[in-house]
Amino acid sequence: MLVFSRHTTTALAINEDEERLLEDVKVHLEKLVPSSGTYLHNDLHLRDVPPDEPINAHSHLMAMMLSTSEVIPIADGKLALGTWQSILFFELDGSRKRTVFLQICGD
Amino acid sequence: MLVFSRHTTTALAINEDEERLLEDVKVHLEKLVPSSGTYLHNDLHLRDVPPDEPINAHSHLMAMMLSTSEVIPIADGKLALGTWQSILFFELDGSRKRTVFLQICGD
Amino acid sequence: MLVFSRHTTTALAINEDEERLLEDVKVHLEKLVPSSGTYLHNDLHLRDVPPDEPINAHSHLMAMMLSTSEVIPIADGKLALGTWQSILFFELDGSRKRTVFLQICGD
Repeated sequence: MLVFSRHTTTALAINEDEERLLEDVKVHLEKLVPSSGTYLHNDLHLRDVPPDEPINAHSHLMAMMLSTSEVIPIADGKLALGTWQSILFFELDGSRKRTVFLQICGD
Repeated sequence: MLVFSRHTTTALAINEDEERLLEDVKVHLEKLVPSSGTYLHNDLHLRDVPPDEPINAHSHLMAMMLSTSEVIPIADGKLALGTWQSILFFELDGSRKRTVFLQICGD
Repeated sequence: MLVFSRHTTTALAINEDEERLLEDVKVHLEKLVPSSGTYLHNDLHLRDVPPDEPINAHSHLMAMMLSTSEVIPIADGKLALGTWQSILFFELDGSRKRTVFLQICGD
């Protein structure tokens, strides 16, 4: 099964769905890509953008550190995830309505 | 061909299988996600876990920096990897018996 | 559609094709994996390599931070990318002739 995030500031990962680990992911990403950092993409006055364009270069960069597409095998009609694996979806630029595409390939 | 790691503390990458580069990967991941760092997931007394639960938040975070699923094209009945490409499997929380799922899709 | 980079010093990402953001990606990767860093893979005198072997451990490590394979759904005969999504291809060890493999799976 293909899982595909249709956004540039969200990301997927397949890992353990443990609430404290998910907090660690946030801290880790913020360390790698500080939201308070200086990014060219955030110079909105130098870009042709709508008035509500967000300051979110860090969200894009964080997304690229994780995944946009994951393919998960199906065996015996079920997702063949490992015991501790879940499909995680991260919103890296705040919460709003998002679309994730699922597609099953094969017989 | 789909290659899928069924664990949350292992990861895949497709890159060069050169022993010194593999050492560089270890050093690099340790720099990005220090195993001696402070992680909420490691506060075992605040979680409902079995007595042998490992201290391995860094292993999970490292795994998310690499890949869980990779899809490799097949052409003329062979994996169409580039000259220097190999499928690399990283154990990020010590060595033990692991399962990697392979599935071939198509005609 | 499978998109697969056949090189160990190039990488894919699916994100926004905005020129200032692409500059941010370069700066970000250079921060995570400094090209001036010390890497075992760069000790060419300790490896059996051709005379023109490049000094490019950082390029390999950067590639592993991004993606080698991405799978993009097709719906109604078109790539079902999100509004801001593009398929980005990064050359992390200079520019030269490169091959990206595309394969469409399904009916």
